[in-house]
Amino acid sequence: MIVLSGPSGVGKGTVCRALRRMMPELVYSVSATTRAPRAGEAEGVDYYYKTREQFQEMIERGALLEYAEYVGNLYGTPREPVERTIAEGKDIILEIDVKGALQVKRNYPEGVFIFLLPPSLDELRQRISGRGTETAAVIDTRMSEASREIGMITEYDYAVVNDEIEAACRRIQSIITAEHCRRDRIVKEYSGLMPFIHKA
Amino acid sequence: MIVLSGPSGVGKGTVCRALRRMMPELVYSVSATTRAPRAGEAEGVDYYYKTREQFQEMIERGALLEYAEYVGNLYGTPREPVERTIAEGKDIILEIDVKGALQVKRNYPEGVFIFLLPPSLDELRQRISGRGTETAAVIDTRMSEASREIGMITEYDYAVVNDEIEAACRRIQSIITAEHCRRDRIVKEYSGLMPFIHKA
Repeated sequence: MIVLSGPSGVGKGTVCRALRRMMPELVYSVSATTRAPRAGEAEGVDYYYKTREQFQEMIERGALLEYAEYVGNLYGTPREPVERTIAEGKDIILEIDVKGALQVKRNYPEGVFIFLLPPSLDELRQRISGRGTETAAVIDTRMSEASREIGMITEYDYAVVNDEIEAACRRIQSIITAEHCRRDRIVKEYSGLMPFIHKA
Repeated sequence: MIVLSGPSGVGKGTVCRALRRMMPELVYSVSATTRAPRAGEAEGVDYYYKTREQFQEMIERGALLEYAEYVGNLYGTPREPVERTIAEGKDIILEIDVKGALQVKRNYPEGVFIFLLPPSLDELRQRISGRGTETAAVIDTRMSEASREIGMITEYDYAVVNDEIEAACRRIQSIITAEHCRRDRIVKEYSGLMPFIHKA
């Protein structure tokens, strides 16, 4: 399980979409939400659409790895598809905010946690401002929130600077390849072939 | 510092030469030896050629990260070029046998230790036999030695299966990229830009 996270405005969504094109073999976790589908969105592709009652019921039976309320709607990561994909021996990537990633980490400390960093705080401010019509006060609030989120980087395994989308994707791809080469994972895979490894 | 090691016959030298072409920005550690230079070999490129007295003196003043005797000649890794390259902020790769790698690990536990594995023991036997004129008894001895060496894999961070040279090199390249993305390294680099990271 790979968790891609980072402060709001850093470009998690954009990087994840580019990564999806670059690594089609990777499974992408689809979130559940109480938000109404928008035009062009499809059930099970963009989101799993739930009523608030259904979502509440998922929370109660522990069916979500993490969830949060955002502008009046609930969003969460269903546990079952993640566990099924891992059981199939495939990699799954979760794109979630910092708070959600820390919830997931409590449930899945063995996941690979990647923090996406802006090249600089000025660049982050520009990306947040560039989104639309926010006032200076709103931007300041979001910047101090982002600073707090960046402080949570100490909880992560890797940090990738999102200076250029292609380069960031290549770094993430390298992290995934390297994680597959971790000695403990390889020894598990090859223990059948080379039984004496375990005796060491 | 990256240490590429593995059992004798696995193809460390071949992989290292291919990697050298693929990653010219990597610095390659040159060993010291008491062996006489062969035709076409150059001082400081293939080896640093030393007399036995010079080599002994290097051992005594701790100028070698590891050393071993092999067929009557001494081989070792000079400490100074490794430390200088690291101080310059560059990556250096050491290609050494399993015993040497474990010596280096005692001096440099923060290095990245990569173990090169054969795809199977049959394949390793073929590679060892294919080298030349060894008798069955010699091959058996070398195989049991290799098995013992593979048992030392538990001391390493990563394991790369040398099934195909290009693929093995790409995995090593990914490991190096991923290691540069480790959170602690990035936080160190970016702490000037984002001072609040350290306050977390």
